[in-house]
Amino acid sequence: MSTYKLYYFNGRGRAEVSRLIFAAAGQKYEDVRYERDQWPSHKSEMPLGQVPVLEVDGTKLPQSLSIARFLAKQFQLAGKDNLEQAKVDAVVDTINDLLAKYIPVRWEQDETKKQELIKKFIAEELPKHLQNLEVLGKLYGNGGPFFVGNHLTWVDLFFYDMATNILQLEANALDNFSWLKKNRAEVEKQPKIAEYLKNRPQTQF
Amino acid sequence: MSTYKLYYFNGRGRAEVSRLIFAAAGQKYEDVRYERDQWPSHKSEMPLGQVPVLEVDGTKLPQSLSIARFLAKQFQLAGKDNLEQAKVDAVVDTINDLLAKYIPVRWEQDETKKQELIKKFIAEELPKHLQNLEVLGKLYGNGGPFFVGNHLTWVDLFFYDMATNILQLEANALDNFSWLKKNRAEVEKQPKIAEYLKNRPQTQF
Repeated sequence: MSTYKLYYFNGRGRAEVSRLIFAAAGQKYEDVRYERDQWPSHKSEMPLGQVPVLEVDGTKLPQSLSIARFLAKQFQLAGKDNLEQAKVDAVVDTINDLLAKYIPVRWEQDETKKQELIKKFIAEELPKHLQNLEVLGKLYGNGGPFFVGNHLTWVDLFFYDMATNILQLEANALDNFSWLKKNRAEVEKQPKIAEYLKNRPQTQF
Repeated sequence: MSTYKLYYFNGRGRAEVSRLIFAAAGQKYEDVRYERDQWPSHKSEMPLGQVPVLEVDGTKLPQSLSIARFLAKQFQLAGKDNLEQAKVDAVVDTINDLLAKYIPVRWEQDETKKQELIKKFIAEELPKHLQNLEVLGKLYGNGGPFFVGNHLTWVDLFFYDMATNILQLEANALDNFSWLKKNRAEVEKQPKIAEYLKNRPQTQF
């Protein structure tokens, strides 16, 4: 029986997808959350000086999506065979394409510049990436509400989490994407996820 | 028995890692290479209007790394178990971090600006990312020349291909990274890879 220890900051950020996988699987783990002032003394303990890191039976793994994919495979949330897993991965990468556009907007420190970037992001980037995701959901979802096959996989959890951030930026972001809205509603209906969302630490990001 | 059809442009680019996997596995596939003027009439045949796309038994998969990971699993080049696969994925993501810094440099059209970006990339980004990769190779490689375990996986092929581009930019890039050089030499020594490298189409990128 493996033991799991997840290291990150006290925020959702790049660790939350893994926490959601643990929640969906009903799997115990140690959720280590560093405050900013604690981090410098722990940085050198991490292979690349970065978090999130997952420690599993003495091995430390960096890279948020590699961690999440590993956990999903451990707990049968990665897709049933190689092809299903590939479809899941393809949607994950497509969400990550959107995240790559979102992150510089999110971290811009100059408030005037930030407002400009937000406007541009919402007008130019967001709709085309959401459209791509809706296309893949319909293509791989067998007519159902989950991205791949007819069951929950970690890509549903990844989209749920990413969209939470997007909806904080633009409350109407999903209004033209009924499939994506239905997908999120389905995730929230999962009993273990609902329970987790109710009780998770409240953090700004 | 599955049949595979890989769609991309007539270049190495984001498809070459998959071609290297096919080569290492000795697996036949159809290598569809569009010239730029052929692409507009095929764009709408792709799920996201992008290539590379892998067609496998009627399913079309986008996203270069998802395609490569799928092929690697099909041909036993992905790592022997979930944990080995997670280590491979973590190194892949770390190579991809470097690729994300390299791509805007590669595609800059203004020649003066491009030379500035190359200088900055070589001075500021390249060493720290290569250092990260050398750390992971030593951590997960069991003292051997492959990134994970003691055998070839697709991350060795991915690094080989990415470093080919980096070395075109800066011939001495790997001089301070003896582990990475050894890893590349080991890849080139694989008989099926050596054969492929000798015979593959010569393209600029």
